[in-house]
Amino acid sequence: MKWDFQSNVFETELIEIAGTRERIVRGGRDKFPLLPKALNGVQQIGVVGWGSQAPAQAQNLRESLENSSIRVKVGLRENSGSLELARAAGFTEENGTLGEMYATIRESDLTLLLISDAAQAETYRDVFNAMKPGAALGLSHGFLLGVMENDNARFPDNINVIGVCPKGMGPSVRRLYVQGRGVNGAGINASFAVEQDIDGRAVDLAIGWSVALGSPFSFITTLENEYKSDIFGERGILLGAVHGLIEALYGRFRRAGMPEEDAFNESSESITGPISKTISHDGILAVYEKLPAEKRPAFQRMYNAVYAAAEPLIAEIYDEVASGNEIQSVVMAGRRLQKWPMGRVDGTHMWRVGERVRARRVEEKIPLNSEAAAAYIGVMMAQIDRLISNGHLHSEIANESVIEAVDSLNPYMHARGVDYMVDNCSTTARLGTRKWGPRFDHLIQQEAFTRFDSGETLDESPFAAFLEHPAHEALAVCAKLRPPVDISVV
Amino acid sequence: MKWDFQSNVFETELIEIAGTRERIVRGGRDKFPLLPKALNGVQQIGVVGWGSQAPAQAQNLRESLENSSIRVKVGLRENSGSLELARAAGFTEENGTLGEMYATIRESDLTLLLISDAAQAETYRDVFNAMKPGAALGLSHGFLLGVMENDNARFPDNINVIGVCPKGMGPSVRRLYVQGRGVNGAGINASFAVEQDIDGRAVDLAIGWSVALGSPFSFITTLENEYKSDIFGERGILLGAVHGLIEALYGRFRRAGMPEEDAFNESSESITGPISKTISHDGILAVYEKLPAEKRPAFQRMYNAVYAAAEPLIAEIYDEVASGNEIQSVVMAGRRLQKWPMGRVDGTHMWRVGERVRARRVEEKIPLNSEAAAAYIGVMMAQIDRLISNGHLHSEIANESVIEAVDSLNPYMHARGVDYMVDNCSTTARLGTRKWGPRFDHLIQQEAFTRFDSGETLDESPFAAFLEHPAHEALAVCAKLRPPVDISVV
Repeated sequence: MKWDFQSNVFETELIEIAGTRERIVRGGRDKFPLLPKALNGVQQIGVVGWGSQAPAQAQNLRESLENSSIRVKVGLRENSGSLELARAAGFTEENGTLGEMYATIRESDLTLLLISDAAQAETYRDVFNAMKPGAALGLSHGFLLGVMENDNARFPDNINVIGVCPKGMGPSVRRLYVQGRGVNGAGINASFAVEQDIDGRAVDLAIGWSVALGSPFSFITTLENEYKSDIFGERGILLGAVHGLIEALYGRFRRAGMPEEDAFNESSESITGPISKTISHDGILAVYEKLPAEKRPAFQRMYNAVYAAAEPLIAEIYDEVASGNEIQSVVMAGRRLQKWPMGRVDGTHMWRVGERVRARRVEEKIPLNSEAAAAYIGVMMAQIDRLISNGHLHSEIANESVIEAVDSLNPYMHARGVDYMVDNCSTTARLGTRKWGPRFDHLIQQEAFTRFDSGETLDESPFAAFLEHPAHEALAVCAKLRPPVDISVV
Repeated sequence: MKWDFQSNVFETELIEIAGTRERIVRGGRDKFPLLPKALNGVQQIGVVGWGSQAPAQAQNLRESLENSSIRVKVGLRENSGSLELARAAGFTEENGTLGEMYATIRESDLTLLLISDAAQAETYRDVFNAMKPGAALGLSHGFLLGVMENDNARFPDNINVIGVCPKGMGPSVRRLYVQGRGVNGAGINASFAVEQDIDGRAVDLAIGWSVALGSPFSFITTLENEYKSDIFGERGILLGAVHGLIEALYGRFRRAGMPEEDAFNESSESITGPISKTISHDGILAVYEKLPAEKRPAFQRMYNAVYAAAEPLIAEIYDEVASGNEIQSVVMAGRRLQKWPMGRVDGTHMWRVGERVRARRVEEKIPLNSEAAAAYIGVMMAQIDRLISNGHLHSEIANESVIEAVDSLNPYMHARGVDYMVDNCSTTARLGTRKWGPRFDHLIQQEAFTRFDSGETLDESPFAAFLEHPAHEALAVCAKLRPPVDISVV
């Protein structure tokens, strides 16, 4: 096994995924009585920030720990614009669960640093200085580790450093937890990491945090693997690629003479509807198998064209993330955002069409378009292959390339359009969508559609590899570890 | 003056540009007799590479030095695919003007390192080791300096290091030189830099090289300022932005119901035709002044919308270049290109329409579209303002943001489409166009067109600043220093 771990509190399970073994932890509300033991030594959890993850995590933790003596307190900058939001969620100065950021860190035995990535980059030295010796720092993203690698900085050696990284944006973390109250808990799966363990408590602190968030299953990773796969994945099929791809498909269908609403139905609706749902319930290959025989040759040709076009762009994203360049870009963007906030990603006409289509939607009538399916899956498989080449575990790959897309993110786009999906995510993800989405749009148009429409013979090896791909088996294993309810987004 | 210099060979002139003074050197064929003195100590110039700049520079230098004893020899890797091209241009092993790259460097007193940026990044240590003590290294781009800054490396201290950076791609450098044979020489303006002067010869080596290339005027810069403004500029209005902008405009005009050929005429043709030509001959403001009164309010509104949308993206590009990130990206891309060569940028349908439009073009009938003009000039001015904020000289700004665009690059797109412009440029520029062009397309569509079409009141300060902008005077001064012929591209 690549990484193994031992818990003193929770039962663990060994699973076989595509020829490899991984140890995992099963969550559920029936495990909540174990939380005080797992969080041994923790009187207060400080949740710092109020962005995408913090509201969800603070509320889930408070609810999971309500029969314990552990307090969940939110820490925010003085005059933060989020103070009112935190108060509205029941975190108040009066009941001792809302305080100034650094004061909260100084008091807390476990600090979950959930401020924006850019803010983490700017403040991490002060955060470290504020922490009690022996306390634990929790991150929901390895981003800060990437920043520290660029800066040649290290974590203080007198704290535990752990990560719990839910495989979805904050609103999904909260939504699935609330939906799952009646079914022995459901939340979103998470990976966890133990970056620094100074006293033997770190593994169970991490698993306890993950179980308390409601994670049905917790998988092990490292912060480095996590940030690489996460920042990469959201620039790829999770957000950037799916946005760019839908723009490209819509334009293609319009040029072919389709009316606006049909073009939206065959592109965006098809991907966020039947394609995502089929993948979620029956796997990737099932999408192809659902197609009638006469549509399959077009799927194969489009798959080969898109896979070949996307492969170098996917490799570029991985290189940019792994080299530290992308993290440096996010840090620099954080400074510019103070002067120039991000605009909307749904400004173009097609998303106005989308509003009309959604208003009249009949879910069962959304078409499964074979070109859209092939293009979407072609990019997804190119992403999976890149992660395999770079040594990521199958559980991480399945989560970061497939499950998070179809179970957590696409449902948001399906409910209210691309901006509702993208702009509920972290600033790093929002920046990445704006940076890489347009690249996919142009590249798919310039190269994949051009080759598809040409008479030329295409390399057929991508589709041949697709049929036999180990990712299908890995996903089938991971699918059994899905939350017991589908997310319901309104 | 920000930088000053003294020549022992050439007359220099002081010019006033928008309240600042700069020293320049006037070129021309009548200066060619001074070249042996300027290139004192040089028996052989080794031109290494055969990409965009090398064929042009090797041929211009050979012709300018034909009455001297200085030999121009091309150096290429063994088995280089370019050997045949060099031989076809008259550089042959038989006449001693073609050799292996490192052997040529070892023999040369002045080595012009014109291999691709990525190849420079991979080989520079070997190149330095091959150079004779006391020889001079010539660069046509500060890129290598950026790489060396990322690597914490330094130039050997026993060589001169100079730069001559023509303000256009290689084919323009050659084309204008050939066209200018009958009018006391014409080539393309260049900036020059003296990065390391070990024996007092470096200034005149640099100016001699520039004059021998045919530069009508040579301006001083530093390699650092050069690479920042150059890599930035080509990602902006020179290549990336103009491509993205034309895609966005074409899509807009199509959605408004224009037939395909009209949409191409009002976007691409308008920019590469009357807009570029007006700027070239009469300045930027003249484009606005040419518009009939009823079109001016729309120009103003579109200018304000595009300027505001482009400003943060332009700032992002500058940050990426200045931080070293963009250079690191190009170096990494160089490695990927061996596996995945770049595809074409003109794959989309609009460029097929463009072929039909060009075939039937009547130059005088190309429309000056007010929205296209405002969008193009809005991005151009945002770029100029960014360079001014970052302390670049007016001559460099005018060249990197305006003159190179309208006099050197856009004529190539006008002649044969976007790929003929982009893919005659350096690999760094080609990569940058593919990376940033799509960003401009999406951003302009998502934000500028959306705001323009909305009823909302826009901030009018960008257009107010445009009317009074010092760039107009700077450009008028620089326009007097233009080559005496217009480039003729076929």
